[in-house]
Amino acid sequence: MKKLKIVKIGGNVLDSDKLLDEFLEGFSALKGPKILVHGGGKMATEVSKKLGITSQVKDGRRITSESDLQVVTMVYAGWLNKNLVAQLHYKGCQAVGLSGADANTILSEKRPVQEIDYGWVGDIKKINGLWISLILEQGLSPVFSAITHDGNGHLLNTNADTIAAEMAVGMSSFYETELIYIFEKKGVLSNIDDENSVIEELSYKNYEEGKSSGTIHAGMLPKLHNGFNALKRNVNSVKIADQSILNSESGQCTQLIL
Amino acid sequence: MKKLKIVKIGGNVLDSDKLLDEFLEGFSALKGPKILVHGGGKMATEVSKKLGITSQVKDGRRITSESDLQVVTMVYAGWLNKNLVAQLHYKGCQAVGLSGADANTILSEKRPVQEIDYGWVGDIKKINGLWISLILEQGLSPVFSAITHDGNGHLLNTNADTIAAEMAVGMSSFYETELIYIFEKKGVLSNIDDENSVIEELSYKNYEEGKSSGTIHAGMLPKLHNGFNALKRNVNSVKIADQSILNSESGQCTQLIL
Repeated sequence: MKKLKIVKIGGNVLDSDKLLDEFLEGFSALKGPKILVHGGGKMATEVSKKLGITSQVKDGRRITSESDLQVVTMVYAGWLNKNLVAQLHYKGCQAVGLSGADANTILSEKRPVQEIDYGWVGDIKKINGLWISLILEQGLSPVFSAITHDGNGHLLNTNADTIAAEMAVGMSSFYETELIYIFEKKGVLSNIDDENSVIEELSYKNYEEGKSSGTIHAGMLPKLHNGFNALKRNVNSVKIADQSILNSESGQCTQLIL
Repeated sequence: MKKLKIVKIGGNVLDSDKLLDEFLEGFSALKGPKILVHGGGKMATEVSKKLGITSQVKDGRRITSESDLQVVTMVYAGWLNKNLVAQLHYKGCQAVGLSGADANTILSEKRPVQEIDYGWVGDIKKINGLWISLILEQGLSPVFSAITHDGNGHLLNTNADTIAAEMAVGMSSFYETELIYIFEKKGVLSNIDDENSVIEELSYKNYEEGKSSGTIHAGMLPKLHNGFNALKRNVNSVKIADQSILNSESGQCTQLIL
Protein backbone atom coordinates (compact mmCIF):
# COMPACT_ATOMS: atom_id res chain seq x y z
CA MET A 1 0.00 0.00 0.00
CA LYS A 2 1.27 3.47 -0.88
CA LYS A 3 2.01 5.89 1.93
CA LEU A 4 0.11 9.16 2.40
CA LYS A 5 1.03 11.98 4.78
CA ILE A 6 -1.69 14.21 6.25
CA VAL A 7 -0.19 17.31 7.81
CA LYS A 8 -2.13 19.79 9.92
CA ILE A 9 -1.02 23.35 10.69
CA GLY A 10 -2.65 25.98 12.88
CA GLY A 11 -2.36 29.57 13.94
CA ASN A 12 1.22 29.43 15.24
CA VAL A 13 2.53 28.61 11.74
CA LEU A 14 -0.03 30.65 9.77
CA ASP A 15 0.59 33.80 11.81
CA SER A 16 4.37 33.81 11.34
CA ASP A 17 5.85 34.57 7.90
CA LYS A 18 9.09 32.87 8.94
CA LEU A 19 7.54 29.67 10.30
CA LEU A 20 5.08 29.49 7.41
CA ASP A 21 7.84 29.77 4.85
CA GLU A 22 9.87 27.12 6.66
CA PHE A 23 6.81 24.88 6.79
CA LEU A 24 5.89 25.35 3.12
CA GLU A 25 9.48 24.57 2.07
CA GLY A 26 9.37 21.37 4.10
CA PHE A 27 5.90 20.38 2.91
CA SER A 28 6.78 21.02 -0.76
CA ALA A 29 9.90 18.89 -0.43
CA LEU A 30 8.00 15.91 1.02
CA LYS A 31 8.07 12.99 -1.40
CA GLY A 32 4.90 11.10 -2.33
CA PRO A 33 1.21 11.80 -1.82
CA LYS A 34 0.41 14.41 0.82
CA ILE A 35 -2.51 16.45 2.12
CA LEU A 36 -2.42 19.72 4.03
CA VAL A 37 -5.15 20.67 6.50
CA HIS A 38 -5.07 24.18 7.94
CA GLY A 39 -6.89 25.95 10.70
CA GLY A 40 -7.13 29.69 11.07
CA GLY A 41 -5.09 32.23 12.91
CA LYS A 42 -5.31 35.73 14.22
CA MET A 43 -6.75 37.05 10.98
CA ALA A 44 -10.30 35.77 11.56
CA THR A 45 -10.34 37.46 14.96
CA GLU A 46 -8.99 40.68 13.45
CA VAL A 47 -11.51 40.70 10.60
CA SER A 48 -14.36 39.96 13.03
CA LYS A 49 -13.25 42.82 15.24
CA LYS A 50 -13.09 45.25 12.32
CA LEU A 51 -16.51 44.12 11.11
CA GLY A 52 -17.88 44.70 14.60
CA ILE A 53 -18.76 41.04 15.21
CA THR A 54 -18.52 39.87 18.80
CA SER A 55 -17.95 36.16 19.25
CA GLN A 56 -20.55 34.56 21.44
CA VAL A 57 -19.34 32.28 24.19
CA LYS A 58 -21.79 30.14 26.19
CA ASP A 59 -20.55 28.17 29.21
CA GLY A 60 -16.99 28.65 27.99
CA ARG A 61 -17.80 27.22 24.54
CA ARG A 62 -17.47 29.32 21.43
CA ILE A 63 -20.62 29.56 19.33
CA THR A 64 -20.47 29.98 15.54
CA SER A 65 -23.09 32.56 14.57
CA GLU A 66 -24.06 33.26 10.94
CA SER A 67 -21.65 36.24 10.98
CA ASP A 68 -18.84 34.12 12.45
CA LEU A 69 -19.41 31.53 9.73
CA GLN A 70 -19.15 34.26 7.12
CA VAL A 71 -15.84 35.48 8.55
CA VAL A 72 -14.22 32.05 8.87
CA THR A 73 -15.36 31.06 5.39
CA MET A 74 -13.91 34.27 3.97
CA VAL A 75 -10.64 34.02 5.88
CA TYR A 76 -10.02 30.25 5.97
CA ALA A 77 -11.52 29.08 2.64
CA GLY A 78 -10.74 32.37 0.87
CA TRP A 79 -7.63 34.31 1.85
CA LEU A 80 -5.61 31.70 3.75
CA ASN A 81 -6.44 28.71 1.55
CA LYS A 82 -5.79 30.47 -1.77
CA ASN A 83 -2.56 32.07 -0.53
CA LEU A 84 -1.27 28.73 0.74
CA VAL A 85 -2.02 27.20 -2.67
CA ALA A 86 -0.36 30.07 -4.59
CA GLN A 87 2.74 29.83 -2.39
CA LEU A 88 2.93 26.04 -2.71
CA HIS A 89 2.86 26.31 -6.51
CA TYR A 90 5.68 28.83 -6.31
CA LYS A 91 7.66 26.31 -4.27
CA GLY A 92 7.02 23.61 -6.86
CA CYS A 93 4.20 21.77 -5.11
CA GLN A 94 1.12 21.30 -7.31
CA ALA A 95 -1.69 22.10 -4.89
CA VAL A 96 -5.46 22.37 -5.04
CA GLY A 97 -7.33 24.25 -2.31
CA LEU A 98 -10.58 22.70 -1.18
CA SER A 99 -13.27 23.08 1.42
CA GLY A 100 -15.32 20.09 2.48
CA ALA A 101 -18.12 21.33 0.20
CA ASP A 102 -15.93 21.00 -2.90
CA ALA A 103 -16.62 17.70 -4.64
CA ASN A 104 -18.45 16.80 -1.43
CA THR A 105 -15.06 15.90 0.06
CA ILE A 106 -16.16 16.30 3.70
CA LEU A 107 -19.82 15.86 4.49
CA SER A 108 -20.81 17.02 7.99
CA GLU A 109 -23.92 17.55 10.01
CA LYS A 110 -24.76 20.55 12.15
CA ARG A 111 -23.93 19.57 15.71
CA PRO A 112 -27.23 18.52 17.34
CA VAL A 113 -28.48 20.95 19.97
CA GLN A 114 -28.35 19.33 23.40
CA GLU A 115 -27.34 21.50 26.34
CA ILE A 116 -25.67 24.02 24.06
CA ASP A 117 -26.47 25.20 20.54
CA TYR A 118 -23.00 25.59 19.03
CA GLY A 119 -24.43 27.33 15.97
CA TRP A 120 -23.01 26.57 12.53
CA VAL A 121 -20.54 23.93 13.69
CA GLY A 122 -20.16 20.68 11.81
CA ASP A 123 -19.44 17.14 12.98
CA ILE A 124 -17.93 15.05 10.21
CA LYS A 125 -20.03 12.22 8.76
CA LYS A 126 -18.10 11.12 5.67
CA ILE A 127 -14.85 11.68 3.78
CA ASN A 128 -15.05 11.30 -0.03
CA GLY A 129 -11.83 9.25 -0.09
CA LEU A 130 -12.23 7.96 -3.62
CA TRP A 131 -12.23 11.40 -5.21
CA ILE A 132 -9.38 12.59 -2.98
CA SER A 133 -7.31 9.58 -4.13
CA LEU A 134 -7.97 10.50 -7.77
CA ILE A 135 -6.63 13.99 -7.07
CA LEU A 136 -3.58 12.56 -5.29
CA GLU A 137 -2.93 10.14 -8.18
CA GLN A 138 -2.75 13.15 -10.50
CA GLY A 139 0.20 14.39 -8.43
CA LEU A 140 -1.81 17.14 -6.77
CA SER A 141 -1.75 17.92 -3.05
CA PRO A 142 -5.15 18.87 -1.64
CA VAL A 143 -5.10 21.77 0.83
CA PHE A 144 -8.15 21.71 3.07
CA SER A 145 -9.60 24.65 4.97
CA ALA A 146 -11.67 23.83 8.03
CA ILE A 147 -15.00 24.55 6.34
CA THR A 148 -17.36 21.69 5.51
CA HIS A 149 -21.00 21.45 4.38
CA ASP A 150 -24.16 19.59 5.36
CA GLY A 151 -25.33 18.55 1.89
CA ASN A 152 -28.41 20.75 2.35
CA GLY A 153 -26.78 23.92 1.10
CA HIS A 154 -25.22 25.12 4.34
CA LEU A 155 -21.54 25.56 5.18
CA LEU A 156 -20.26 24.51 8.60
CA ASN A 157 -17.28 25.56 10.70
CA THR A 158 -15.35 22.41 11.63
CA ASN A 159 -12.41 21.75 13.89
CA ALA A 160 -9.22 21.47 11.82
CA ASP A 161 -7.59 18.88 14.15
CA THR A 162 -10.67 16.70 13.73
CA ILE A 163 -10.69 17.17 9.95
CA ALA A 164 -7.05 16.03 9.81
CA ALA A 165 -7.79 12.95 11.94
CA GLU A 166 -10.94 12.00 9.99
CA MET A 167 -9.10 12.60 6.72
CA ALA A 168 -6.35 10.20 7.85
CA VAL A 169 -8.95 7.62 8.88
CA GLY A 170 -10.99 8.04 5.68
CA MET A 171 -7.92 7.78 3.45
CA SER A 172 -6.64 4.67 5.24
CA SER A 173 -8.82 2.53 2.92
CA PHE A 174 -6.60 3.68 0.04
CA TYR A 175 -3.21 4.40 1.64
CA GLU A 176 -1.03 3.64 4.62
CA THR A 177 -1.67 6.95 6.36
CA GLU A 178 0.58 9.04 8.58
CA LEU A 179 -0.97 11.95 10.49
CA ILE A 180 1.31 14.80 11.59
CA TYR A 181 0.07 17.56 13.87
CA ILE A 182 2.33 20.62 13.66
CA PHE A 183 2.13 22.96 16.64
CA GLU A 184 4.34 25.34 18.63
CA LYS A 185 6.39 22.75 20.57
CA LYS A 186 8.76 20.01 19.46
CA GLY A 187 6.28 17.48 20.88
CA VAL A 188 4.31 16.70 24.02
CA LEU A 189 6.47 17.87 26.94
CA SER A 190 6.88 15.96 30.19
CA ASN A 191 7.78 19.28 31.82
CA ILE A 192 5.94 22.31 30.45
CA ASP A 193 8.83 24.56 31.52
CA ASP A 194 11.43 22.55 29.62
CA GLU A 195 11.14 22.80 25.82
CA ASN A 196 13.46 19.82 25.42
CA SER A 197 11.51 17.44 27.65
CA VAL A 198 9.80 15.91 24.60
CA ILE A 199 8.09 12.58 25.27
CA GLU A 200 9.31 10.52 22.30
CA GLU A 201 6.62 7.88 22.57
CA LEU A 202 3.33 8.51 24.28
CA SER A 203 1.28 5.39 24.89
CA TYR A 204 -2.50 5.42 25.20
CA LYS A 205 -2.09 4.13 28.77
CA ASN A 206 0.22 7.03 29.71
CA TYR A 207 -2.14 9.49 28.00
CA GLU A 208 -5.10 8.19 30.02
CA GLU A 209 -3.05 8.37 33.23
CA GLY A 210 -1.75 11.86 32.42
CA LYS A 211 -5.28 13.03 31.63
CA SER A 212 -6.54 11.78 35.03
CA SER A 213 -3.61 13.08 37.05
CA GLY A 214 -3.51 16.43 35.21
CA THR A 215 0.17 16.06 34.21
CA ILE A 216 -0.75 16.49 30.52
CA HIS A 217 -1.44 20.13 29.72
CA ALA A 218 -5.19 20.66 29.17
CA GLY A 219 -4.58 22.41 25.84
CA MET A 220 -3.03 19.20 24.48
CA LEU A 221 -6.00 16.98 25.29
CA PRO A 222 -8.22 17.58 22.21
CA LYS A 223 -5.26 16.99 19.85
CA LEU A 224 -4.27 13.81 21.69
CA HIS A 225 -7.88 12.64 21.77
CA ASN A 226 -8.07 13.12 17.97
CA GLY A 227 -4.69 11.48 17.47
CA PHE A 228 -5.40 8.34 19.51
CA ASN A 229 -8.85 8.12 17.96
CA ALA A 230 -7.21 8.08 14.50
CA LEU A 231 -4.66 5.48 15.60
CA LYS A 232 -7.44 3.19 16.81
CA ARG A 233 -9.17 3.49 13.44
CA ASN A 234 -6.49 2.20 11.03
CA VAL A 235 -4.20 5.23 10.82
CA ASN A 236 -0.66 3.89 10.70
CA SER A 237 1.23 6.62 12.53
CA VAL A 238 0.41 9.80 14.46
CA LYS A 239 3.10 12.36 15.30
CA ILE A 240 2.99 15.68 17.14
CA ALA A 241 5.84 18.08 16.37
CA ASP A 242 6.82 21.57 15.26
CA GLN A 243 7.33 22.58 11.60
CA SER A 244 11.00 21.51 11.61
CA ILE A 245 9.94 17.83 11.56
CA LEU A 246 9.32 18.05 7.81
CA ASN A 247 12.90 19.11 7.12
CA SER A 248 14.54 16.21 8.92
CA GLU A 249 13.19 12.69 9.14
CA SER A 250 15.14 12.23 12.36
CA GLY A 251 13.63 15.38 13.96
CA GLN A 252 12.34 15.31 17.50
CA CYS A 253 8.63 14.65 17.93
CA THR A 254 6.09 12.76 19.98
CA GLN A 255 4.87 9.56 18.38
CA LEU A 256 1.56 8.23 19.70
CA ILE A 257 1.38 4.47 20.27
CA LEU A 258 -1.55 2.30 21.31
CA MET B 1 -16.57 16.33 -29.98
CA LYS B 2 -18.51 16.59 -26.72
CA LYS B 3 -20.24 19.85 -25.90
CA LEU B 4 -19.30 21.99 -22.90
CA LYS B 5 -21.21 24.98 -21.55
CA ILE B 6 -19.36 27.80 -19.78
CA VAL B 7 -21.80 30.05 -17.93
CA LYS B 8 -20.86 33.36 -16.33
CA ILE B 9 -22.91 35.13 -13.68
CA GLY B 10 -22.29 38.49 -12.03
CA GLY B 11 -23.63 40.77 -9.35
CA ASN B 12 -27.22 41.01 -10.57
CA VAL B 13 -27.74 37.27 -10.00
CA LEU B 14 -25.45 36.93 -6.94
CA ASP B 15 -27.13 39.82 -5.11
CA SER B 16 -30.68 38.48 -5.48
CA ASP B 17 -31.75 35.36 -3.56
CA LYS B 18 -34.62 34.86 -6.02
CA LEU B 19 -32.57 35.19 -9.21
CA LEU B 20 -29.71 33.15 -7.74
CA ASP B 21 -32.02 30.31 -6.82
CA GLU B 22 -33.63 30.40 -10.27
CA PHE B 23 -30.18 30.39 -11.85
CA LEU B 24 -28.84 27.52 -9.72
CA GLU B 25 -31.92 25.42 -10.52
CA GLY B 26 -31.35 26.01 -14.21
CA PHE B 27 -27.60 25.40 -14.04
CA SER B 28 -28.04 22.18 -12.02
CA ALA B 29 -30.57 20.88 -14.55
CA LEU B 30 -28.24 21.46 -17.54
CA LYS B 31 -27.23 18.16 -19.10
CA GLY B 32 -23.61 17.38 -19.89
CA PRO B 33 -20.31 19.00 -18.91
CA LYS B 34 -20.59 22.56 -17.59
CA ILE B 35 -18.48 25.20 -15.89
CA LEU B 36 -19.67 28.15 -13.82
CA VAL B 37 -17.66 31.38 -13.62
CA HIS B 38 -18.80 34.00 -11.13
CA GLY B 39 -17.89 37.58 -10.46
CA GLY B 40 -18.63 39.41 -7.25
CA GLY B 41 -21.49 41.54 -6.11
CA LYS B 42 -22.34 44.13 -3.54
CA MET B 43 -20.75 42.11 -0.74
CA ALA B 44 -17.14 42.98 -1.57
CA THR B 45 -18.04 46.68 -1.53
CA GLU B 46 -19.88 46.27 1.78
CA VAL B 47 -17.03 44.34 3.41
CA SER B 48 -14.48 46.90 2.15
CA LYS B 49 -16.59 49.71 3.56
CA LYS B 50 -16.88 48.02 6.97
CA LEU B 51 -13.13 47.34 7.00
CA GLY B 52 -12.51 50.99 6.21
CA ILE B 53 -10.88 50.32 2.84
CA THR B 54 -11.41 53.01 0.22
CA SER B 55 -11.11 51.82 -3.35
CA GLN B 56 -8.58 53.80 -5.32
CA VAL B 57 -9.62 55.06 -8.73
CA LYS B 58 -7.08 56.59 -11.12
CA ASP B 59 -8.26 58.18 -14.37
CA GLY B 60 -11.59 56.43 -13.95
CA ARG B 61 -9.95 53.00 -13.60
CA ARG B 62 -10.27 50.98 -10.44
CA ILE B 63 -6.97 49.99 -8.83
CA THR B 64 -6.63 46.72 -6.84
CA SER B 65 -4.59 47.49 -3.73
CA GLU B 66 -3.27 44.77 -1.40
CA SER B 67 -6.30 45.39 0.86
CA ASP B 68 -8.70 45.20 -2.08
CA LEU B 69 -7.12 41.91 -3.15
CA GLN B 70 -7.62 40.59 0.37
CA VAL B 71 -11.30 41.53 0.33
CA VAL B 72 -12.07 40.11 -3.11
CA THR B 73 -10.21 36.89 -2.32
CA MET B 74 -12.15 36.52 0.94
CA VAL B 75 -15.51 37.34 -0.62
CA TYR B 76 -15.22 35.80 -4.12
CA ALA B 77 -12.98 32.75 -3.48
CA GLY B 78 -14.26 32.26 0.08
CA TRP B 79 -17.85 33.14 0.90
CA LEU B 80 -19.46 33.32 -2.56
CA ASN B 81 -17.58 30.40 -4.12
CA LYS B 82 -18.13 27.98 -1.25
CA ASN B 83 -21.79 28.93 -0.85
CA LEU B 84 -22.42 28.44 -4.57
CA VAL B 85 -20.80 25.00 -4.34
CA ALA B 86 -22.79 24.01 -1.22
CA GLN B 87 -26.05 25.12 -2.86
CA LEU B 88 -25.27 23.32 -6.12
CA HIS B 89 -24.68 20.06 -4.23
CA TYR B 90 -28.03 20.54 -2.51
CA LYS B 91 -29.64 20.91 -5.96
CA GLY B 92 -27.98 17.70 -7.14
CA CYS B 93 -25.08 19.22 -9.08
CA GLN B 94 -21.67 17.82 -8.08
CA ALA B 95 -19.55 20.97 -7.98
CA VAL B 96 -15.98 21.85 -7.08
CA GLY B 97 -15.07 25.46 -6.30
CA LEU B 98 -11.75 26.65 -7.65
CA SER B 99 -9.66 29.77 -8.02
CA GLY B 100 -7.14 30.03 -10.82
CA ALA B 101 -4.40 29.17 -8.30
CA ASP B 102 -5.95 25.76 -7.60
CA ALA B 103 -4.23 23.09 -9.69
CA ASN B 104 -2.76 26.05 -11.58
CA THR B 105 -6.01 26.19 -13.56
CA ILE B 106 -5.62 29.85 -14.58
CA LEU B 107 -2.12 31.28 -14.75
CA SER B 108 -1.99 35.06 -15.07
CA GLU B 109 0.55 37.84 -14.98
CA LYS B 110 0.28 41.10 -13.10
CA ARG B 111 -0.84 43.68 -15.64
CA PRO B 112 2.31 45.51 -16.77
CA VAL B 113 2.54 49.10 -15.54
CA GLN B 114 2.26 51.50 -18.48
CA GLU B 115 0.31 54.71 -17.97
CA ILE B 116 -1.55 53.25 -15.01
CA ASP B 117 -0.52 50.76 -12.32
CA TYR B 118 -3.69 48.74 -11.87
CA GLY B 119 -2.27 47.05 -8.79
CA TRP B 120 -2.91 43.34 -8.19
CA VAL B 121 -4.82 42.76 -11.41
CA GLY B 122 -4.10 39.72 -13.57
CA ASP B 123 -4.12 39.23 -17.31
CA ILE B 124 -4.63 35.58 -18.22
CA LYS B 125 -1.72 33.71 -19.81
CA LYS B 126 -2.81 30.07 -19.75
CA ILE B 127 -5.77 27.81 -18.93
CA ASN B 128 -4.91 24.33 -17.60
CA GLY B 129 -7.47 22.71 -19.90
CA LEU B 130 -6.24 19.16 -19.47
CA TRP B 131 -6.83 19.09 -15.72
CA ILE B 132 -10.18 20.85 -16.06
CA SER B 133 -11.26 18.14 -18.58
CA LEU B 134 -10.28 15.43 -16.08
CA ILE B 135 -12.53 17.07 -13.48
CA LEU B 136 -15.38 17.37 -15.99
CA GLU B 137 -14.97 13.71 -17.00
CA GLN B 138 -15.51 12.76 -13.37
CA GLY B 139 -18.95 14.35 -13.60
CA LEU B 140 -17.95 17.40 -11.56
CA SER B 141 -18.77 20.99 -12.48
CA PRO B 142 -15.95 23.43 -11.71
CA VAL B 143 -17.09 26.74 -10.20
CA PHE B 144 -14.49 29.47 -10.74
CA SER B 145 -14.12 32.64 -8.73
CA ALA B 146 -12.40 35.55 -10.45
CA ILE B 147 -9.12 35.12 -8.55
CA THR B 148 -6.05 33.84 -10.38
CA HIS B 149 -2.32 33.63 -9.55
CA ASP B 150 0.99 34.54 -11.14
CA GLY B 151 2.90 31.32 -10.38
CA ASN B 152 5.24 33.34 -8.15
CA GLY B 153 3.11 33.07 -5.04
CA HIS B 154 0.83 36.04 -5.60
CA LEU B 155 -2.93 36.06 -6.15
CA LEU B 156 -4.43 38.38 -8.76
CA ASN B 157 -7.86 39.94 -9.19
CA THR B 158 -9.08 39.07 -12.68
CA ASN B 159 -12.11 40.14 -14.71
CA ALA B 160 -14.76 37.41 -14.57
CA ASP B 161 -16.06 38.07 -18.12
CA THR B 162 -12.52 37.60 -19.41
CA ILE B 163 -12.03 34.42 -17.35
CA ALA B 164 -15.22 32.98 -18.87
CA ALA B 165 -14.08 33.87 -22.41
CA GLU B 166 -10.54 32.51 -21.92
CA MET B 167 -11.95 29.38 -20.27
CA ALA B 168 -14.18 28.80 -23.31
CA VAL B 169 -11.22 29.35 -25.65
CA GLY B 170 -8.88 27.15 -23.58
CA MET B 171 -11.41 24.31 -23.34
CA SER B 172 -12.16 24.41 -27.08
CA SER B 173 -9.20 22.03 -27.66
CA PHE B 174 -11.17 19.41 -25.73
CA TYR B 175 -14.82 20.27 -26.29
CA GLU B 176 -17.19 22.10 -28.59
CA THR B 177 -17.65 25.10 -26.28
CA GLU B 178 -20.65 27.34 -25.73
CA LEU B 179 -20.17 30.53 -23.73
CA ILE B 180 -23.21 32.06 -22.02
CA TYR B 181 -23.04 35.47 -20.36
CA ILE B 182 -25.89 35.92 -17.90
CA PHE B 183 -26.74 39.53 -17.07
CA GLU B 184 -29.73 41.69 -16.15
CA LYS B 185 -31.37 41.93 -19.61
CA LYS B 186 -32.80 39.29 -21.94
CA GLY B 187 -30.04 40.17 -24.40
CA VAL B 188 -28.47 43.13 -26.17
CA LEU B 189 -31.25 45.65 -26.72
CA SER B 190 -31.67 47.71 -29.88
CA ASN B 191 -33.60 50.25 -27.78
CA ILE B 192 -32.35 50.64 -24.21
CA ASP B 193 -35.84 51.77 -23.10
CA ASP B 194 -37.55 48.66 -24.47
CA GLU B 195 -36.74 45.46 -22.57
CA ASN B 196 -38.18 43.39 -25.40
CA SER B 197 -36.10 44.91 -28.20
CA VAL B 198 -33.61 42.03 -27.97
CA ILE B 199 -31.26 41.74 -30.96
CA GLU B 200 -31.49 38.00 -31.69
CA GLU B 201 -28.32 37.86 -33.74
CA LEU B 202 -25.57 40.42 -33.41
CA SER B 203 -22.95 40.24 -36.13
CA TYR B 204 -19.40 41.44 -35.66
CA LYS B 205 -20.03 44.01 -38.40
CA ASN B 206 -23.08 45.42 -36.58
CA TYR B 207 -21.17 45.42 -33.28
CA GLU B 208 -18.32 47.43 -34.87
CA GLU B 209 -20.82 49.85 -36.41
CA GLY B 210 -22.78 50.17 -33.17
CA LYS B 211 -19.57 50.80 -31.25
CA SER B 212 -18.57 53.61 -33.62
CA SER B 213 -22.01 55.21 -33.79
CA GLY B 214 -22.63 54.86 -30.05
CA THR B 215 -25.90 52.95 -30.50
CA ILE B 216 -24.57 50.05 -28.38
CA HIS B 217 -24.66 50.93 -24.68
CA ALA B 218 -21.11 51.56 -23.41
CA GLY B 219 -21.61 49.13 -20.50
CA MET B 220 -22.10 46.30 -23.01
CA LEU B 221 -18.84 46.86 -24.88
CA PRO B 222 -16.39 44.88 -22.66
CA LYS B 223 -18.72 41.85 -22.62
CA LEU B 224 -19.19 42.01 -26.39
CA HIS B 225 -15.46 42.49 -26.90
CA ASN B 226 -14.79 39.36 -24.81
CA GLY B 227 -17.56 37.46 -26.57
CA PHE B 228 -16.44 38.23 -30.13
CA ASN B 229 -12.84 37.60 -29.13
CA ALA B 230 -13.88 34.11 -27.94
CA LEU B 231 -15.86 33.45 -31.11
CA LYS B 232 -12.85 34.32 -33.26
CA ARG B 233 -10.72 31.85 -31.27
CA ASN B 234 -12.61 28.56 -31.77
CA VAL B 235 -15.49 29.00 -29.35
CA ASN B 236 -18.54 27.51 -31.03
CA SER B 237 -21.30 29.73 -29.69
CA VAL B 238 -21.59 32.89 -27.56
CA LYS B 239 -24.90 33.98 -26.07
CA ILE B 240 -25.89 36.92 -23.90
CA ALA B 241 -29.07 36.49 -21.88
CA ASP B 242 -30.68 36.64 -18.46
CA GLN B 243 -30.85 33.65 -16.06
CA SER B 244 -34.12 32.37 -17.58
CA ILE B 245 -32.20 31.14 -20.67
CA LEU B 246 -31.08 28.02 -18.77
CA ASN B 247 -34.66 26.98 -18.08
CA SER B 248 -35.82 27.07 -21.70
CA GLU B 249 -33.70 26.24 -24.70
CA SER B 250 -35.97 28.45 -26.79
CA GLY B 251 -35.55 31.44 -24.45
CA GLN B 252 -34.81 34.88 -25.82
CA CYS B 253 -31.16 35.90 -26.02
CA THR B 254 -28.58 37.58 -28.21
CA GLN B 255 -26.40 35.21 -30.17
CA LEU B 256 -23.11 36.66 -31.41
CA ILE B 257 -22.12 35.76 -34.97
CA LEU B 258 -18.97 36.53 -36.90
